[in-house]
Amino acid sequence: MIRYLHTDPWRIIQKGFNPKHQRSSESIFSIGNGRFGQRANHEESYSGETLQGSYVAGVYYPDKTRVGWWKNGYPEYFAKVLNSTNWIGIRVWVDGAELDLASCQLIDFYRELDMRRGLLTRRFSAIIGDGKQVDVEAMRFCSMSRDAQAAIRYSVTPVNFSGVVRFESCLDGDVRNHDANYDERFWAPVDQWAEASSGGVVTRTRKTEFELAVAMTHTLNRESVWEAFTSQARAACATEVRVPNGHSAVLHKYVGIVSSLHAPAAQAGEEAIRESLAARDTGFEAMREEHEARWASIWSTVDIRIDGDPEAQQAIRFNIFQLNQTYTGEDARLNIGPKGFTGEKYGGSTYWDTEAYCLPFYMSTKPQQVARQLLIYRYQHLQQAIENARKLGFTGGAALYPMVTMNGEECHNEWEITFEEIHRNGAIAYAIWNYIRYTGDHRYLCEFGLDVLIGIARFWSQRVNYSEPRKGYVILGVTGPNEYENNVNNNWYTNYIATWCLKWCIEALDYVKTHDPKAFAEKALRYELNEEEERTRWMDIISRMYFPVLEGTDVFLQQDGFMDKEQLTAADLDPLERPINQHWSWDRILRSVFIKQADVLQGLYFFEDDFSAAQLKANFDFYEPRTVHESSLSPCVHAILAARLGYEEKAYEMYMRTSRLDLDDYNHEAHEGLHITSMAGTWMAVVQGFGGMRVQDNQLLFSPMLPARWEAYQFRVLFRGQVYTVFVDRTGHRVEVGS
Amino acid sequence: MIRYLHTDPWRIIQKGFNPKHQRSSESIFSIGNGRFGQRANHEESYSGETLQGSYVAGVYYPDKTRVGWWKNGYPEYFAKVLNSTNWIGIRVWVDGAELDLASCQLIDFYRELDMRRGLLTRRFSAIIGDGKQVDVEAMRFCSMSRDAQAAIRYSVTPVNFSGVVRFESCLDGDVRNHDANYDERFWAPVDQWAEASSGGVVTRTRKTEFELAVAMTHTLNRESVWEAFTSQARAACATEVRVPNGHSAVLHKYVGIVSSLHAPAAQAGEEAIRESLAARDTGFEAMREEHEARWASIWSTVDIRIDGDPEAQQAIRFNIFQLNQTYTGEDARLNIGPKGFTGEKYGGSTYWDTEAYCLPFYMSTKPQQVARQLLIYRYQHLQQAIENARKLGFTGGAALYPMVTMNGEECHNEWEITFEEIHRNGAIAYAIWNYIRYTGDHRYLCEFGLDVLIGIARFWSQRVNYSEPRKGYVILGVTGPNEYENNVNNNWYTNYIATWCLKWCIEALDYVKTHDPKAFAEKALRYELNEEEERTRWMDIISRMYFPVLEGTDVFLQQDGFMDKEQLTAADLDPLERPINQHWSWDRILRSVFIKQADVLQGLYFFEDDFSAAQLKANFDFYEPRTVHESSLSPCVHAILAARLGYEEKAYEMYMRTSRLDLDDYNHEAHEGLHITSMAGTWMAVVQGFGGMRVQDNQLLFSPMLPARWEAYQFRVLFRGQVYTVFVDRTGHRVEVGS
Repeated sequence: MIRYLHTDPWRIIQKGFNPKHQRSSESIFSIGNGRFGQRANHEESYSGETLQGSYVAGVYYPDKTRVGWWKNGYPEYFAKVLNSTNWIGIRVWVDGAELDLASCQLIDFYRELDMRRGLLTRRFSAIIGDGKQVDVEAMRFCSMSRDAQAAIRYSVTPVNFSGVVRFESCLDGDVRNHDANYDERFWAPVDQWAEASSGGVVTRTRKTEFELAVAMTHTLNRESVWEAFTSQARAACATEVRVPNGHSAVLHKYVGIVSSLHAPAAQAGEEAIRESLAARDTGFEAMREEHEARWASIWSTVDIRIDGDPEAQQAIRFNIFQLNQTYTGEDARLNIGPKGFTGEKYGGSTYWDTEAYCLPFYMSTKPQQVARQLLIYRYQHLQQAIENARKLGFTGGAALYPMVTMNGEECHNEWEITFEEIHRNGAIAYAIWNYIRYTGDHRYLCEFGLDVLIGIARFWSQRVNYSEPRKGYVILGVTGPNEYENNVNNNWYTNYIATWCLKWCIEALDYVKTHDPKAFAEKALRYELNEEEERTRWMDIISRMYFPVLEGTDVFLQQDGFMDKEQLTAADLDPLERPINQHWSWDRILRSVFIKQADVLQGLYFFEDDFSAAQLKANFDFYEPRTVHESSLSPCVHAILAARLGYEEKAYEMYMRTSRLDLDDYNHEAHEGLHITSMAGTWMAVVQGFGGMRVQDNQLLFSPMLPARWEAYQFRVLFRGQVYTVFVDRTGHRVEVGS
Repeated sequence: MIRYLHTDPWRIIQKGFNPKHQRSSESIFSIGNGRFGQRANHEESYSGETLQGSYVAGVYYPDKTRVGWWKNGYPEYFAKVLNSTNWIGIRVWVDGAELDLASCQLIDFYRELDMRRGLLTRRFSAIIGDGKQVDVEAMRFCSMSRDAQAAIRYSVTPVNFSGVVRFESCLDGDVRNHDANYDERFWAPVDQWAEASSGGVVTRTRKTEFELAVAMTHTLNRESVWEAFTSQARAACATEVRVPNGHSAVLHKYVGIVSSLHAPAAQAGEEAIRESLAARDTGFEAMREEHEARWASIWSTVDIRIDGDPEAQQAIRFNIFQLNQTYTGEDARLNIGPKGFTGEKYGGSTYWDTEAYCLPFYMSTKPQQVARQLLIYRYQHLQQAIENARKLGFTGGAALYPMVTMNGEECHNEWEITFEEIHRNGAIAYAIWNYIRYTGDHRYLCEFGLDVLIGIARFWSQRVNYSEPRKGYVILGVTGPNEYENNVNNNWYTNYIATWCLKWCIEALDYVKTHDPKAFAEKALRYELNEEEERTRWMDIISRMYFPVLEGTDVFLQQDGFMDKEQLTAADLDPLERPINQHWSWDRILRSVFIKQADVLQGLYFFEDDFSAAQLKANFDFYEPRTVHESSLSPCVHAILAARLGYEEKAYEMYMRTSRLDLDDYNHEAHEGLHITSMAGTWMAVVQGFGGMRVQDNQLLFSPMLPARWEAYQFRVLFRGQVYTVFVDRTGHRVEVGS
């Protein structure tokens, strides 16, 4: 745990500048608007350690696969989020000396992320060269109301001299990904232009040929002459002014960002210019008001208020803020990458995180259409999922959804994950069920859902085999959600969700057959459904699936042979060897009892209604002590189950761990980007955990608990067209309907 | 199976030139002398597909590791055999037109590897340009008697014209490895020179800084003027002569090859010159006589004669020939790479192949010192093996020998092999036992053997854990010899050899303690042996190790859960899907029942005396049908066991498969290089399989069988200072003692 940030209910605050925290701060203070996002890199030159990051949703590059030893079935590429044209750059010279936070003397550095308003602000004084001091203030935002626009206000004030301030504001499309398998360039230059205070750069991704146009225009609060420069994939506008002591030079930079996802490639450049000019014409303050109003509207439905625990309060808002910056649900082509727009790692691609963790958040805080978009994203990838299964030897329309994808094609390239972590297929089916349970939108099955469920059911049907010694069906060679086990047999969670998928598909078949016979007939034909035979096979598997258990107890065994391991608990670990994934060799991790993230417990969370309280307790008591939570997706599930079981302290510990994972950098990796998808788990920890929210028989139920350190909390959810506000305090709880 | 070569008892013959076989022929016709080796690339320019390959023993480059996802404990590099200075190049022009076998018209192409004499010869007629025909004959060898020298005779004879023949003979140190993780250059140029008919090139490996000097000098049978050229890392000597119709221009190229393993780096160049001049002064014919005499001497002890089956005869000599070209046992720094000097694949590094397969061959056909060298190679790597274990979390002097190495450091980088295929440690211990069993050299234990055994025993002692459900020790998370299973629990072979190692170490402790108390005391001190405690722990493990079995049978189960798999046999496979490793995704292979190479059966082969004939039969009958033999190391073990069991047809089938693996290219990979280490298994298949040779109580026993297609066979072995010749024919067998 590393804590250097200050606590505030609505703001993330950094006071003082320590270069060793710069990369983490760049992640934590990231801003975005669902269409594009930007790490909190400094505007001015910075010669210290930094990870430049400017990302545009849906724009990716198929980076040629790098493996040590090729296995049949590996994908040819890993789709990567791209570090794109850097639009924030503003170089600053004071009387000819360049401002660089790594080399000048800094006084009173202050950085603030205002989550209520969506603003990133820095203020500092710098002493440059021979003792000249300037006060600098920079504010920027990615407009939530104008999703192709961003703006920066940058002011420089000499405080002990009068002198010349020079700005050189640039767009730099000559950028690379830090994470590139073969150090290839992902972007090709297309065009650049600059004239006076305006300029632009167009670049195109190699291979995928996404086009990205970024344009800028500027105003300065003092009369000045502008010069413009271009070089390949770069444009810059420079100006200098004499500034009297105590006065300020204030530069406004207005940026338009348009990719070929939102304009014909040939017109992207013009669109970007149009956007930047529109921003300028609106002006910084008016733009900001619009932007703040949009954030206010978002917060009005999504905020969670926690009284009496400022750290918990700050953390939940940080999680909610980042989720809203990452995905708005307006575009079914987009999804939610594990790091959102805050880093390169995990390629910015789609994982099962979306279905298992993010869907409930968007389902409860956004109009129904947003969650539906997330489901349709997978429906649109069904053919690729079938192709993916075919590559692995499956036939007849069996579908295996990818572990990682940008366009439906599998991108991952570790056999133990790519080919074996097949439980992800279950999460896709579960999300459909979860969505319908919440929304009542059964029509979705008739339109899109059944198609996906048939493909998934067929996969499981082929993936099991009958074991004579077990007298039942087994699933061999899998990796469960706990990735600290590979190639195990009969992972309880996988066997359970596989069986559940078959049941759910049969139920869905029945529903569509009854309620929309025409759709059913059409799908039966399209997918060459051999209904009788397939149903019979599925029923047989459902009735004879083998599940490992710890005999004489209610504990479901994570996999065959789990009890052969040395039975230690996390308390036995040397704290210096944690996280074990940074200290132990892989084989040692694999044969240890330690669990990376909820596995059996993930199943108990998903399918809570199928199990008794005694079963839940037995399994939680067994697995929690063995779980090291080295996945960001783990503590939230444990927090929810602990709350269910009345383990208030454990629930609180897990909640704090998930909610402050990045702010307190538990896993020493915030510098790589934020754990965006697990942030939805944080929301679940409050709403489903402490709030005890669940859906049963088309009704929303709450059974709240109040953590001892909290005085009160309140949250809102949307459910079937109504807003419910839940208030919990020491006296009890109440639910208000309507806004 | 691809067969285009002709059968002959002593020669490999290719008639006619088909470019699609060129790369395979380059492998198969490789020549070498233990110090360096050369693929059968054409001397003249060749614009067709080729894999240039010239390799120098012990010279390697640490190629930066390439993996998709880094795991703790992975080595930083993979040590690779290097494609080194190309010394065979002789460009030829006839009246100004260059000879290129890919573009000229070829008549009567003939290539021959004379295994008795160690000569590579090509003869062909070529029609160049406007119908001018030349006869070409090229012969070369890597001298077995002068291990830094090689010679080429290259003659060109105009047969329908008189004209000018130009030779440009070169050394080219500007070479790359086809197999380079990041397309890096492995060599840096150091020096090059050329004057008249002599020249040389010195290059140095980057990072490892091996220096390699290659020098050449030439004679021509006609008076001519020589020109010399150099460019970076290249030297060339050129001359041209007018040759009357029917006469020949005969060029002799004498090459000296000296690496910094055999001379101080600064003197390598001079040494190489000295070697090349010495070769020239000796002359091609005299050098050849010496070389042939050396081969005659080798064959006098190592030849196996098979009557009545020319293909079997040719194959066994091919295997023996290649083994003798690869390793002579004169240098304890060297070892036997899976591809020897015939290709780049597998890095030319040392695997457990050496101990499990190659040792018996060298032990029985070479002076005792050679096998001892192979053991000392590992002794010298003990500290690195301890370091390797330490990296994986083991302590207290536990040693894990590497899966792949050049200098004792682990090079491999797949977790399921690197960290889990730990049975290799057993093979190192087994080799010491096998060597002493064969030679009676118990002193070896006192000098070097015990040190290694203690390190290995300590590894196993830490690697097991006690399982409460099994009431015994288990070994979790391993890969057995059958690499078509990864991360399995209780691989029978691993559990068995682990236990056996502990027993063997205790036996060795007792021996040294009794026979050389001083050495014992010294070692006990050096390795901080806590004798009582360690022995007690080892004895406990020996007495309570768990072994999986198929209940009610004599079958030892390959690993836990093996019977949960769908029980198919190789006969059920679609021939179009074989080899399965080229057709199936890895997960499908892993969860299938199919076995890549002998696993349980490897154990029954190693420890035959521990098991009854009924056990051997039960296991062979169970596992053989499930084995797909997609490792070159598999058929030989099955051949030996089949012979033991009197399964003559199966033994013959397996023998032919192992012995003609490359000649008939069973696995479609001869173009990458030959399976050198499995060639020793071929020898075992005859001597230990058909010949039934084994050692018991310091005696050599034979129980020969004669395959139906053979009329007779004979082989020789060295045993404790005596030569034994075994003759087997239809009438029976006899053993002659003495040469």
